[in-house]
Amino acid sequence: DMELAAIEKGGFEHFMLKEIVEQPTTIFDCLRGRLDTKEGSIRMGGVDPHLDRLTKADRIVILACGTSWHAGLVAEYVFEELCRIPVEVEYASEFRYRNPIIREGDVIMAVSQSGETADTLVAIEMAKRQGAFIFGIVNVVGSSISRLSHAGAYTHAGPEIGVASTKAFTAQLAVLMMIAIKVGFAKGTIDQKRYLHLVSELGAVPAKVEAILESKDQIRSIAETFRDARDFLYLGRGYNFPIALEGALKLKEISYIHAEGYPAAEMKHGPIALVDENLPVVFVATKDAYHEKILSNAQEIKARKGKVIAVISEGDDAFSSLADATLPVPAADELIAPLLSAIPLQLLAYYIGHSKGLDVDKPRNLAKSVTVE
Amino acid sequence: DMELAAIEKGGFEHFMLKEIVEQPTTIFDCLRGRLDTKEGSIRMGGVDPHLDRLTKADRIVILACGTSWHAGLVAEYVFEELCRIPVEVEYASEFRYRNPIIREGDVIMAVSQSGETADTLVAIEMAKRQGAFIFGIVNVVGSSISRLSHAGAYTHAGPEIGVASTKAFTAQLAVLMMIAIKVGFAKGTIDQKRYLHLVSELGAVPAKVEAILESKDQIRSIAETFRDARDFLYLGRGYNFPIALEGALKLKEISYIHAEGYPAAEMKHGPIALVDENLPVVFVATKDAYHEKILSNAQEIKARKGKVIAVISEGDDAFSSLADATLPVPAADELIAPLLSAIPLQLLAYYIGHSKGLDVDKPRNLAKSVTVE
Repeated sequence: DMELAAIEKGGFEHFMLKEIVEQPTTIFDCLRGRLDTKEGSIRMGGVDPHLDRLTKADRIVILACGTSWHAGLVAEYVFEELCRIPVEVEYASEFRYRNPIIREGDVIMAVSQSGETADTLVAIEMAKRQGAFIFGIVNVVGSSISRLSHAGAYTHAGPEIGVASTKAFTAQLAVLMMIAIKVGFAKGTIDQKRYLHLVSELGAVPAKVEAILESKDQIRSIAETFRDARDFLYLGRGYNFPIALEGALKLKEISYIHAEGYPAAEMKHGPIALVDENLPVVFVATKDAYHEKILSNAQEIKARKGKVIAVISEGDDAFSSLADATLPVPAADELIAPLLSAIPLQLLAYYIGHSKGLDVDKPRNLAKSVTVE
Repeated sequence: DMELAAIEKGGFEHFMLKEIVEQPTTIFDCLRGRLDTKEGSIRMGGVDPHLDRLTKADRIVILACGTSWHAGLVAEYVFEELCRIPVEVEYASEFRYRNPIIREGDVIMAVSQSGETADTLVAIEMAKRQGAFIFGIVNVVGSSISRLSHAGAYTHAGPEIGVASTKAFTAQLAVLMMIAIKVGFAKGTIDQKRYLHLVSELGAVPAKVEAILESKDQIRSIAETFRDARDFLYLGRGYNFPIALEGALKLKEISYIHAEGYPAAEMKHGPIALVDENLPVVFVATKDAYHEKILSNAQEIKARKGKVIAVISEGDDAFSSLADATLPVPAADELIAPLLSAIPLQLLAYYIGHSKGLDVDKPRNLAKSVTVE
C-alpha cells in the first residue's frame, strides 16, 4: 500500500478517473514505436518473428477473465473479419478444468492486465504442456504470464491502480487490433487500401479519445439523472456487443447497480421482460452495419417505456427523438469504434458510483488482480 | 388463439407448469425408438446416414437464440469432451450479420423450438448458400428450419404453449446428447464402456426427472421465501454453467426479477460486488469434477452474507451447513446432469412468478417464437 499511495493521483479524486483521463496518452504509448501512420506500417517486436505462425494459424483460442475476456471478444470479431481465422474466446476458468482441444496450428492468446490472473496462468501452463504456442498480452512487465509465454506484446498502459480496469482494457484492444491488422495484411485477407485505412484510423484514436473526454461534464450530468436506477441493461451488436458487456461490468463493479450486457437481438428472447418505465437501457449504437437494426431495438424499448441512453456517432440524428440521453463519440471505422465507445461508458460508471458516494477505487468484495483460483 | 385454447391444460393452472411436469414423458418420447438401453444402441434416422460427416467434422458451429442457445452451450461441452471436435456456439443474430468463416468440413447445427426463429432461419440460409451442411434440431415438425436443413432430428416434445421454454429445452439437450454419444463412439473418442454407461445414464433420465418433480412442494416453499428478492445471481461451472444461464433466463422471463447467470469463477471479476445480505445466489452444484471449486465459491458468497440456494446431488452434505436452501436432484454422470439440474430451476422460476401473481404463460413484452428480426 505504501507503493500504491506513492503513485500520484495527479489532482484527480480517484485513480479510476485519472486512469480514464490518461487514455489518450496510454493508447498513444501503446501505439508508439509500433504503428507508423506516415509510412503505413505496424512493427511489433514480439509479433514480427512469429508472424508466420499467426498467418498460418488454423484457429486462435483466446484465454482471459473479466474485462480482459471482453477485450478477447472484440478481438474475435476483428480477427475473424480481417484474418479469416476462426477465433474461440474462452473463460480461462472454464478452459482449464476441461480437457480442452488443442491442435497443431492453434495459437493460444492469453490476455491479462496483471499477468498474474490465477485461472489464466494455470490455463496457459496446461496448454503449454500440450504443445500449444502461447502468445501473451499483458500490462505488467515481467509478470508470470509474460514469462510463461513464447511470445507476446505488452500493452504499455502504465500501472493501473483502480480496481475496475479502464486504461488497461483500451490498451489491450489497441494491441489486439494492431496484431489483427498486421496479420490480415500479411496473409492477404485485407488489401493494402483497407490496411492503410485501418492503420490511419487506429492512429487517430488518441485524439478522438481526447475529444470524448471533453464531454465529461455532460456525462456526469447524465450519470446524476440515472444514479438511482435499480437495474440497467446494456445492448450492442457486432463489434460493439462486447462493449455492452464491458459497460455493464464497469457499472456493476463501481456502483453495485445490477447492470447486465446482452447482444441486442437476444433482448427479445427474454431480457425484454424486465423493461418498464424504471429501466434504463444503454445502446452502444455507433454508425456501423448494424445501425438500423439496433435503432429498431431501441424503438422497441421506447415503446415499452424504457429509458434509452445511446452511445452514438457524432452528428447521428437517428437517436435524437428517441433517446433520453446520448453519449456522442467521433466517427470511426466500425472495427476501431469499440476503442471509442468504451470511454463514455467508463465515465458513466465512474460518475454514477461517485455520485452514490462509493469508494470507486476499491469497490466492495473485489481485488485488483484475482490471484486465487 | 382458438387453437391454443383448445389444447388442454390437463388440470394445471398454467401451461408452463403442465409442460414442466410433462418432462418425464417428453424426454422419454424423445429417447423412444432411438436410445435402446438393453441393446446399448442409439439409432437416429436423421443422423445415421450422415454419421460420417459428423465424425469427420473439423468443427461444429451451433446457431441458436435464447434458451436454444443455452442448449447449444451444453452441447459444446459435451461434443468437445466426447467427440474431440471444437464447437463454436454463436448467437444466430450475431453470426448472420458478420461475414462468418465457414470451411469445408464444418457442420452447422441450428437449434430452435419453433423452427421459425427469424435470426436462426436467416443465418442458416446464409450458411447454406456458402455450401455448409446444415443439421437442424427443432421441435415443430415441418417448420421452416426443418425444411431448410440437409438433415436433422426432431425433439418430439409436443406443442409448447408457455412462452418460457421448458420441455423443449430438455428435449433439445436429450437429442444433442444422443448425437454426441453416438458420434463419440463411432469416432472412437470414447470406448465401449463409457458409451454403454452414458447410454444407460441417459435412459435413466425420465425416472430421475419424475423423482425431482416429487419435490415440487418444497421448491414452491423456497420460491415463496425468495419471491421478494430484487436480484438473483446464478452460478455454475462446466456442464452446469449453461444451466445457470438458463435458470436465470427463466426467472427473468417469468418473474421480471433481474436474474443473471455467470460462470462461477468469473464472479470474482466483477459480479461479486453485487453481493450483500439481500442477494440470493443460486449455485448449480451437482457432484462433478468442479464440485470442490464451486463449494469454495459458495463459501465466499456466504462470507459476504449473500443467500445461498444450491442445486445439489441427493445426499451431498457439503452444502448443508452453508446453503439457505437446497434443491436436490438424483446423482447422474456429470455429462448428463444438466438434464436434471435444469428442472428445479424451472420450478423455482415458475413458483416465484406464480406467487407474484404474474401471467407466467404470457410474460409481458415476450412472444413465444421470435419470428421478427
